Amino acid sequence: MNNSYGEIIKISTFGESHGLIIGALIDGFFSNLYISEKFIQKNLNLRKPFTSLFSTQRREQDKVKIFTGIFKNKTTGAPVLMLIKNNDKQSSDYNNISLNFRPGHADYTYFLKYKFRDYRGGGRSSARETACRVASGCVFKNLIYNKGVIVRSYIKKIGFLKINFKYWNYTLNRFFSNLLFINEIKDIINNCKNSCNSLSSEIVIIINGLEPSLGDPLYKKINSTISNYLLSINATKSICFGFNFKNKNSFQVKDEIKNSGFTSNNNGGILAGITNGQPLVIKILFKPTSSTSRKIKTINEKLKNITNKTYGRHDPCVGLRAVPVIESMLYTILINKILKKKIYE
Amino acid sequence: MNNSYGEIIKISTFGESHGLIIGALIDGFFSNLYISEKFIQKNLNLRKPFTSLFSTQRREQDKVKIFTGIFKNKTTGAPVLMLIKNNDKQSSDYNNISLNFRPGHADYTYFLKYKFRDYRGGGRSSARETACRVASGCVFKNLIYNKGVIVRSYIKKIGFLKINFKYWNYTLNRFFSNLLFINEIKDIINNCKNSCNSLSSEIVIIINGLEPSLGDPLYKKINSTISNYLLSINATKSICFGFNFKNKNSFQVKDEIKNSGFTSNNNGGILAGITNGQPLVIKILFKPTSSTSRKIKTINEKLKNITNKTYGRHDPCVGLRAVPVIESMLYTILINKILKKKIYE
Amino acid sequence: MNNSYGEIIKISTFGESHGLIIGALIDGFFSNLYISEKFIQKNLNLRKPFTSLFSTQRREQDKVKIFTGIFKNKTTGAPVLMLIKNNDKQSSDYNNISLNFRPGHADYTYFLKYKFRDYRGGGRSSARETACRVASGCVFKNLIYNKGVIVRSYIKKIGFLKINFKYWNYTLNRFFSNLLFINEIKDIINNCKNSCNSLSSEIVIIINGLEPSLGDPLYKKINSTISNYLLSINATKSICFGFNFKNKNSFQVKDEIKNSGFTSNNNGGILAGITNGQPLVIKILFKPTSSTSRKIKTINEKLKNITNKTYGRHDPCVGLRAVPVIESMLYTILINKILKKKIYE
Amino acid sequence: MNNSYGEIIKISTFGESHGLIIGALIDGFFSNLYISEKFIQKNLNLRKPFTSLFSTQRREQDKVKIFTGIFKNKTTGAPVLMLIKNNDKQSSDYNNISLNFRPGHADYTYFLKYKFRDYRGGGRSSARETACRVASGCVFKNLIYNKGVIVRSYIKKIGFLKINFKYWNYTLNRFFSNLLFINEIKDIINNCKNSCNSLSSEIVIIINGLEPSLGDPLYKKINSTISNYLLSINATKSICFGFNFKNKNSFQVKDEIKNSGFTSNNNGGILAGITNGQPLVIKILFKPTSSTSRKIKTINEKLKNITNKTYGRHDPCVGLRAVPVIESMLYTILINKILKKKIYE
Repeated sequence: MNNSYGEIIKISTFGESHGLIIGALIDGFFSNLYISEKFIQKNLNLRKPFTSLFSTQRREQDKVKIFTGIFKNKTTGAPVLMLIKNNDKQSSDYNNISLNFRPGHADYTYFLKYKFRDYRGGGRSSARETACRVASGCVFKNLIYNKGVIVRSYIKKIGFLKINFKYWNYTLNRFFSNLLFINEIKDIINNCKNSCNSLSSEIVIIINGLEPSLGDPLYKKINSTISNYLLSINATKSICFGFNFKNKNSFQVKDEIKNSGFTSNNNGGILAGITNGQPLVIKILFKPTSSTSRKIKTINEKLKNITNKTYGRHDPCVGLRAVPVIESMLYTILINKILKKKIYE
Repeated sequence: MNNSYGEIIKISTFGESHGLIIGALIDGFFSNLYISEKFIQKNLNLRKPFTSLFSTQRREQDKVKIFTGIFKNKTTGAPVLMLIKNNDKQSSDYNNISLNFRPGHADYTYFLKYKFRDYRGGGRSSARETACRVASGCVFKNLIYNKGVIVRSYIKKIGFLKINFKYWNYTLNRFFSNLLFINEIKDIINNCKNSCNSLSSEIVIIINGLEPSLGDPLYKKINSTISNYLLSINATKSICFGFNFKNKNSFQVKDEIKNSGFTSNNNGGILAGITNGQPLVIKILFKPTSSTSRKIKTINEKLKNITNKTYGRHDPCVGLRAVPVIESMLYTILINKILKKKIYE
Repeated sequence: MNNSYGEIIKISTFGESHGLIIGALIDGFFSNLYISEKFIQKNLNLRKPFTSLFSTQRREQDKVKIFTGIFKNKTTGAPVLMLIKNNDKQSSDYNNISLNFRPGHADYTYFLKYKFRDYRGGGRSSARETACRVASGCVFKNLIYNKGVIVRSYIKKIGFLKINFKYWNYTLNRFFSNLLFINEIKDIINNCKNSCNSLSSEIVIIINGLEPSLGDPLYKKINSTISNYLLSINATKSICFGFNFKNKNSFQVKDEIKNSGFTSNNNGGILAGITNGQPLVIKILFKPTSSTSRKIKTINEKLKNITNKTYGRHDPCVGLRAVPVIESMLYTILINKILKKKIYE
Repeated sequence: MNNSYGEIIKISTFGESHGLIIGALIDGFFSNLYISEKFIQKNLNLRKPFTSLFSTQRREQDKVKIFTGIFKNKTTGAPVLMLIKNNDKQSSDYNNISLNFRPGHADYTYFLKYKFRDYRGGGRSSARETACRVASGCVFKNLIYNKGVIVRSYIKKIGFLKINFKYWNYTLNRFFSNLLFINEIKDIINNCKNSCNSLSSEIVIIINGLEPSLGDPLYKKINSTISNYLLSINATKSICFGFNFKNKNSFQVKDEIKNSGFTSNNNGGILAGITNGQPLVIKILFKPTSSTSRKIKTINEKLKNITNKTYGRHDPCVGLRAVPVIESMLYTILINKILKKKIYE
């Protein structure tokens, strides 16, 4: 199924950015577990700083409601449907580009594939859909935490600017409230907005407390599954496991083992596709967003050369908004791997 | 299924490096197509330079035989079973390490997961299994070629040494026969062997002639599928699509469109997870192999600190042997995506 | 996935009978196809005579709305979400049995499995959910018809009463409007209602115009798939393909072949799991419904022996209401098999 | 995948009756479990009485060998490959019918679908393949038995002859060794062979000791899965769950519940697709085999009317040989359902 992921607990997402609603359907989940709209709402709101501060001005309410699969706040074992209403449908932002293919976007490939041009701001390809992954993924957040697993994301680079490691200690919330006071970041972001430009970014994720033996060779190794799902996030270009193995020889990167544990973790917690109990280290590279308000050469549906300019709201650094999405998808991947391992115990 | 891949035509591989046989089972293939053992054998032999020249001295015959699913050399539509006999079973190479966990290898994680130590030279986790992927994948090679698709792999880096671009014009065979005469490469490889070291490598794959519209958003995007399968290859650490997006802003990497085509291809042929008709550009990073004949600290099954030394044959640059494996898996991925697209025509 | 079916075009259904909504999500469908709520609404309304005439008095509006996956009435290729609001939520009907396990129903097994008792009239196990299968399945109805395929269902037996074959010529609608005038049926149904009883039934489905070569041996034979999906319908107990093979020898049931075609069709259009071009003949047996207003011995959640009496509305012959459900699921199965065959052309 | 079944532990079968070998590949199985060729061989031999006594004279050795996935007789967690060599390849038996489509067989439909005529005695469609299901399924037999589950098959009818219930107490082996002494059966079988005829049969399976809560609504109900797999067996025409619900009203078939348990078991151990702890009751109807040595009208590949006569060995009652196949597939289904339930504990 093209629009589902998860081997045991399966998430299906649906909805277009400028359609009526977006949402997620969770199948294969436990019964008799408390889930509350409040908790999911809180996590969705966590997504907002990443979408609005410095970023796009689009103001969504993202009000989520659970419609099926629960009774008196507990799951029944039946599929759980969550819906988020789209309030902020400013199709007008995008009207002037309706007949143009925005370079770097899905417009051209979606038109060729689906013989169809849904110009309403990206439609199904829009990053708005990722709200569904956050809403559904956070349902597993506590289950993961209760097993001692902590997922933390760090912004390593914005454009060419390397983020000072001392900021890596901050929780992501505090990091963002302090963003304004980190001068270099403030400057680089503002320059971007003023020059109608956007920047690449590198996000690092470290997962602590993960039990060993997760992952299923040969073709469902944990790094295979993680890359499959995380590279489905818009604007991702690259994924890397462990610390940088470029230009290295084996003496430089060997992880020796003592009876007190591993002496290092170059491999980033994964050996032969299975977790070894050490922290997972994953790095993802995001390209700069392609919607800017600068002029850019493209063609329209009649294949005529034109110059395009997006008047809509755009994101100077789209990688930042991806952080809650990455974490949510990781909760889903991890709970699935943990349940899969349980089968054989 | 942990040991299968492919959405329509499915490949299952099996067998251990020091077991009796290894092989592949192909299900969902066309009927009435000629396939010959000779052709598969030829492709398997192409794998040998990558495994023996400069590399491991292990000398496999890799003689393949088709046992089911054909009649008078044509496929019947039933599953096709290919078997390769293991002749070169030198378990003795590995005996002294049987109770030790070789760092960087699957030993430790496989022991934890399967409660079982198959010390016969890596067993199921060994790179030997990749011969099965080559044998099965090449069945689709001609189908892909007949559609005008050409898959080419290039070695970009060995250790810190960047390979001169002029060599990128060589077919891979010619490249390898000339390797000996490329002094820098010769030197770096020999140094490695003499110092019992091994090197990382970067492989670039360029795919020309691929039709647009391949790939299925949101979770079966073509980059998702490719990363899922290619990162299942031993020693892979990173995958990257398109040209380097690090430290960039959008002006530097925009692919403008004219009615004569795209003006550039930074995105490497993929937009929003769907091919756009331009060449696919994929880069994979391999870590240095962990089996060297240098001493390395580890523990044995009784959790006692010891020093380990592999007397077996090892590979100074494991990325090189992966090239035919990458190409074979790509044939399988591409034929599946092409057939999937066919459904909707 | 427990709550999805369909190999290429996948339907997921969700919702409980006395929850807020029920619905279906269609993934993998064509783009650029017209679908309208009116057409789906019409088909849902066709379901009503089967649910209300003679049958349960529960009066649902079954008003369907499409929320995603369309733009200007055409499919975009993205998942299509249909929702049906539950208006007629008379939980009070069921209150007096809330702590009792209704024999023959899902109550007992669902309680054991999900550790949870959703007493709201059957919840997820209720036949109400089948409205989702009708709503989604009819989307494929025209596609099937345009290929010359006609699916027709006939009621062969109600209780012990065999329906006169002459009525098999009627379209189902006409059959039902005439039901009142078919005395034997009228009598048997009324007796049922008066004595608070319910009856078994046998439904025969004949599919004409189906192309040969549909079905995928060995484990996705068309009879395997059909039985898998149709036996998921509530109250089904048996499925049979072809004409009755009981107590037969081979001379009695051989289908000889002439160059003008088959001389008979005992095998009901399927040979070795693949269609042969002849009409498919399928027969399904439904058990009598278990909810009646007669007293029946059972236990409550405290495992105390009690007598139960359902005051809610019940169905004297549940097999009748299944007819549109059977047909809808068959449209889904058939379109999937036809698309699967297309891959190999 | 067309040639695999099983949701967690997956079996893939392959091979043609007159090809080199047949076999099975088991993926997703436990590690560290003892399996021995002897045990599998013993179970395969159990299959022989069902295939040779009274039945076909084809004498296979059915010698099985395990090639991968084990080390020192214990499973490693890697895929397990079992191969059975075909010794008794009398293609000559079938030569005279090579250009004819044997009515009632797969010949015609396989020719249309695969554009290919593998006349070697049924090829992939032959019942010989079922040996693979027996070989793989018996691996799970002990696991099931250790959970207190007993699977027993009974022959209820051969042709029109109803088997006296007193024989239902015999284990199947003893039943068969006594077959010769059960006069009615002896007579009916001999008449068959003399008149070159064959008979239908009804097999009843009763499964005791199965835990409740197995089965996954809505589309992976246990009856759905069982029917899907069992109807893939050659010559099956019908499957029925529970006791006969034909011509019944609800008073006749209600299963009341007391705190001491159910008062009856008309539903045959399944409610709403989930086991309720009572014995499962399944009945399967087999058609008479179509290969007889009587003349029968058919066409050849040139579409010319001819008369066909099979000189090969044929089976007077093909349902009998299916018994070990049914049981093996049930072990596979049950272990999968049990493991699936384990996920949620």
